[in-house]
Amino acid sequence: MTKKSKAEKAAKKAKAQLETKTAATAATSSPKGAGRIPSLLRVGPGFDLAAVDPASTPGFRGDRHDGEEALLEGAERLSELQERLWAESRAGGTRSVLLVVQGMDTSGKGGIMRHVVGAVDPQGVNITAFKAPTAEERAHDFLWRIRRALPGAGELGVFDRSHYEDVLIARVLTLVPRTVWSRRYATINRFEAEVAKNTKIVKVMLHISRDEQKARLGERLARPDKHWKYNPGDLDQRQHWDAYQGAYQDALTKCSTDAAPWYVVPANEKWYARLAVMQVLLEAFSDLDPQWPAADFDVAAEQARLAQL
Amino acid sequence: MTKKSKAEKAAKKAKAQLETKTAATAATSSPKGAGRIPSLLRVGPGFDLAAVDPASTPGFRGDRHDGEEALLEGAERLSELQERLWAESRAGGTRSVLLVVQGMDTSGKGGIMRHVVGAVDPQGVNITAFKAPTAEERAHDFLWRIRRALPGAGELGVFDRSHYEDVLIARVLTLVPRTVWSRRYATINRFEAEVAKNTKIVKVMLHISRDEQKARLGERLARPDKHWKYNPGDLDQRQHWDAYQGAYQDALTKCSTDAAPWYVVPANEKWYARLAVMQVLLEAFSDLDPQWPAADFDVAAEQARLAQL
Repeated sequence: MTKKSKAEKAAKKAKAQLETKTAATAATSSPKGAGRIPSLLRVGPGFDLAAVDPASTPGFRGDRHDGEEALLEGAERLSELQERLWAESRAGGTRSVLLVVQGMDTSGKGGIMRHVVGAVDPQGVNITAFKAPTAEERAHDFLWRIRRALPGAGELGVFDRSHYEDVLIARVLTLVPRTVWSRRYATINRFEAEVAKNTKIVKVMLHISRDEQKARLGERLARPDKHWKYNPGDLDQRQHWDAYQGAYQDALTKCSTDAAPWYVVPANEKWYARLAVMQVLLEAFSDLDPQWPAADFDVAAEQARLAQL
Repeated sequence: MTKKSKAEKAAKKAKAQLETKTAATAATSSPKGAGRIPSLLRVGPGFDLAAVDPASTPGFRGDRHDGEEALLEGAERLSELQERLWAESRAGGTRSVLLVVQGMDTSGKGGIMRHVVGAVDPQGVNITAFKAPTAEERAHDFLWRIRRALPGAGELGVFDRSHYEDVLIARVLTLVPRTVWSRRYATINRFEAEVAKNTKIVKVMLHISRDEQKARLGERLARPDKHWKYNPGDLDQRQHWDAYQGAYQDALTKCSTDAAPWYVVPANEKWYARLAVMQVLLEAFSDLDPQWPAADFDVAAEQARLAQL
């Protein structure tokens, strides 16, 4: 094959791929209706956490096997969309995506990191796991460490726990007085609205049942290769189950805004939870609709230069 | 099923998995001889870069299809080994792994990040891409920014380019005088020996031919979805091809130590390069042989507490 025909073939292939890929990014192409999942899980007016069945699989017509297949399909689309956003940022774009993940212990946050976020090129991912604040962090306002962890241009930022702990554990264990935590909802909404100017924010709560948590903690205790994930403190938190559900109800309803909506993901079925978070991310990226940036150089001139070298 | 029998079943399953996994971590189990790859690619005495055929696939008896299959198998083992190292660090372990990736433009560094490093849980990965140093970075010694990017306990750190640029581009373009860059090899060896006390270091150079680079640059120019990856400066660097090969020869031979060995990976075949880097990483993790940490709590007591909650 001559060099010219090779280049022509590559261009043709690229064009075909671009067309296929544009079609593939349409949210409506999801199998078994998975594309409808985000709208069904979004927290809107009158939301009641207690009415959400953690064992349900809203909006998906398939079983576990179908769900795992749909997850793999989604993974390819997500990876492509993130690469486009990254490419856009190399050409001066400033947009990014932030996924906030919350949930009770054992709700499957780690699995989301591995199986959903793991689908994206690690070069474009920025994960922060927020633990109990350090002395330095406590010396600043509660959003200080959050601001420092926001995603850069083109990145998918992921928070494994977040500033919501400051209205969850901080409220349930009264780490700060009610007068302090009760003002934080409005502070969070203002903060997120500001961040949303450059960053598409989506927030998911992985919702498991009390019984499911018991079974998962039991499995961690039964398996030597899971002991490292177990912390006796988890049982102390479990004693406050109802208080946590109440704190979640308030966080979800007070802070689900157009700029930064909450999605409550039934998570007793891990395959469903992963698929649902994948769909939420796909919708977020599809809304941004990132495009491959145009060349900022003279393509023909560079081709001529290359031929000489 | 009663709760007790469920826990018993989980324990049995865990035991079976632990046994399978221990077997799976043996480097000798690699298909088509892939486990032999690292020893064949390691830079030892008398190494000559010019004698390495970039189109070769040393130590692997299969074709591209076999290689892709072996990569997927390796991915599972790598993911498991990294999780063990991470678990070890949660129990107080301080060990980590650092992969340094170098290579000419288009040699496939990005593909290594996506297809090899991407196999690992993103929570345990810490990638740093080193660009031309900023003003702040230039105000410090050349290892300053490197030290700040070293992996934390339990992490797989990855450098996409590294301190070796300070004896590659810095030497080829004489960004610093010869008296400066010529002293850096010894400085690097001392630095890496220090780091190696806690961190298993492996360094790979992706080795492509001059013709292969031309073809890959041509493809980037031919495909609109690849234009963002193209930089006219790449052609300026290409003009210095021979000088770069000479600089690599010196870096490889002066800085391949027991504490931080270099591996030269023939990279004209992308599938082979990815498989080879996977094998280098697998060997590094296998050498560390991380184990699930023992519980630091009374398992039976916790099981009794859980039963009450």
